[in-house]
Amino acid sequence: MLTASVEVRVRYGETDKMGIVYHANYLTWFEIARIELLDSIGCPYKSLEENGFFLPVLSCQVTFRRPAHFDDLLRVVVVIDESSSVRIKADYEVFRDDELLATGKTTHAFVSGEGKVVRPPRSFLERAKQSS
Amino acid sequence: MLTASVEVRVRYGETDKMGIVYHANYLTWFEIARIELLDSIGCPYKSLEENGFFLPVLSCQVTFRRPAHFDDLLRVVVVIDESSSVRIKADYEVFRDDELLATGKTTHAFVSGEGKVVRPPRSFLERAKQSS
Amino acid sequence: MLTASVEVRVRYGETDKMGIVYHANYLTWFEIARIELLDSIGCPYKSLEENGFFLPVLSCQVTFRRPAHFDDLLRVVVVIDESSSVRIKADYEVFRDDELLATGKTTHAFVSGEGKVVRPPRSFLERAKQSS
Amino acid sequence: MLTASVEVRVRYGETDKMGIVYHANYLTWFEIARIELLDSIGCPYKSLEENGFFLPVLSCQVTFRRPAHFDDLLRVVVVIDESSSVRIKADYEVFRDDELLATGKTTHAFVSGEGKVVRPPRSFLERAKQSS
Repeated sequence: MLTASVEVRVRYGETDKMGIVYHANYLTWFEIARIELLDSIGCPYKSLEENGFFLPVLSCQVTFRRPAHFDDLLRVVVVIDESSSVRIKADYEVFRDDELLATGKTTHAFVSGEGKVVRPPRSFLERAKQSS
Repeated sequence: MLTASVEVRVRYGETDKMGIVYHANYLTWFEIARIELLDSIGCPYKSLEENGFFLPVLSCQVTFRRPAHFDDLLRVVVVIDESSSVRIKADYEVFRDDELLATGKTTHAFVSGEGKVVRPPRSFLERAKQSS
Repeated sequence: MLTASVEVRVRYGETDKMGIVYHANYLTWFEIARIELLDSIGCPYKSLEENGFFLPVLSCQVTFRRPAHFDDLLRVVVVIDESSSVRIKADYEVFRDDELLATGKTTHAFVSGEGKVVRPPRSFLERAKQSS
Repeated sequence: MLTASVEVRVRYGETDKMGIVYHANYLTWFEIARIELLDSIGCPYKSLEENGFFLPVLSCQVTFRRPAHFDDLLRVVVVIDESSSVRIKADYEVFRDDELLATGKTTHAFVSGEGKVVRPPRSFLERAKQSS
């Protein structure tokens, strides 16, 4: 199990006329947490792409419990459970202090520059194993 | 059952460095289809809000089958099945010609300006019934 | 002089908590008009990129006169004046009916895939000349 | 003269298919710097809005010198020069290390909830004066 957590401060442009955060932005925050997790195991996503490995989103899901507002300081926690298989599954929780605002999931697969599903790069597998 | 469909041309800013549409944008397209559906039954979302009814997203889900690209002309189809209950459920399909690129779901509830869940406005229920 | 005009309906996600359109979105609309102008002279931007010509934004400017709101139907007019030089200059106006909401400018240069400034592709120059 | 500076890490969704940051996102970063400046003088924008003062963008301008890329760590510097007048003018510089990537300007006026231009709130004027 791999985990990471990031702080995100809500940007003004992330709100909508309902006065709360526009729902699609949670997916962006999930991604920031994912990127941080890869950084934390010594496997930055930028380097993965430079080596020809891409990690597109195959599916995503968000459940909204309470709204987030402009300038809120949020904590986004990501957990990746099955890093050794072709399909990477990530779970997310978004908190404001101790209050759980949203939960979510994304699934991913490593693909080549041509869009073919490939096995995760060895460096990722090794670092994921060491960090678990 | 209510249904509507809209055409969306992929904007340049909706792509990312992977060369395909950034995943969060599908949620925006789903919303455009939802707005069109409400228009088509004579119940524009703008008027709903002016009358104090808001329809936030409670949950959302997207499954990506094939990538969409810049300038693609897409068709987004929405179906709302249970318009008479407090919880509104919508299903979506995104097509490029006959090719299904993505499917998704959102759930919603009508809430008041104070964020309280309320029964759908009568005008919505009547028009939804007539259009089913 | 080349000109084109597109209709844009304001998306919900384009608004912010001030209840009006978030300012950065005007740049996206300007781009839609630019893309349409290139389409209209038979020189789609997608094809330009496929042939190794990119047209990044070198500078941009927007003056906001009146706010745009959710669901507004806007008309964005673009005029390109000097299409024959290395530097492409475009001017924009955003209207809601007859009301001018915003004006703007962008400048561009054709660059190669390596980011080097290049002369505009011949096809563009010829079609621009024919359409002027 | 008031000044502030923030660090911004480029998000994946802020890139486009050209492989660089989509130009409109610089305006979002300018705003983050503006918000930080108001925080730093003890006059958070969120509080200003809660007290009925809004600071919409009246005009904006960006000049792009070099592209920013995914995962770049940027520094955005804002300077506000004339905080005592009705029209607030802000200047921006975006750096990656010592490299200047972009410059920009925005102008603002305080408006009431009804959209009327008003004098800056006294708390802002006093704190701006103390911090200058």
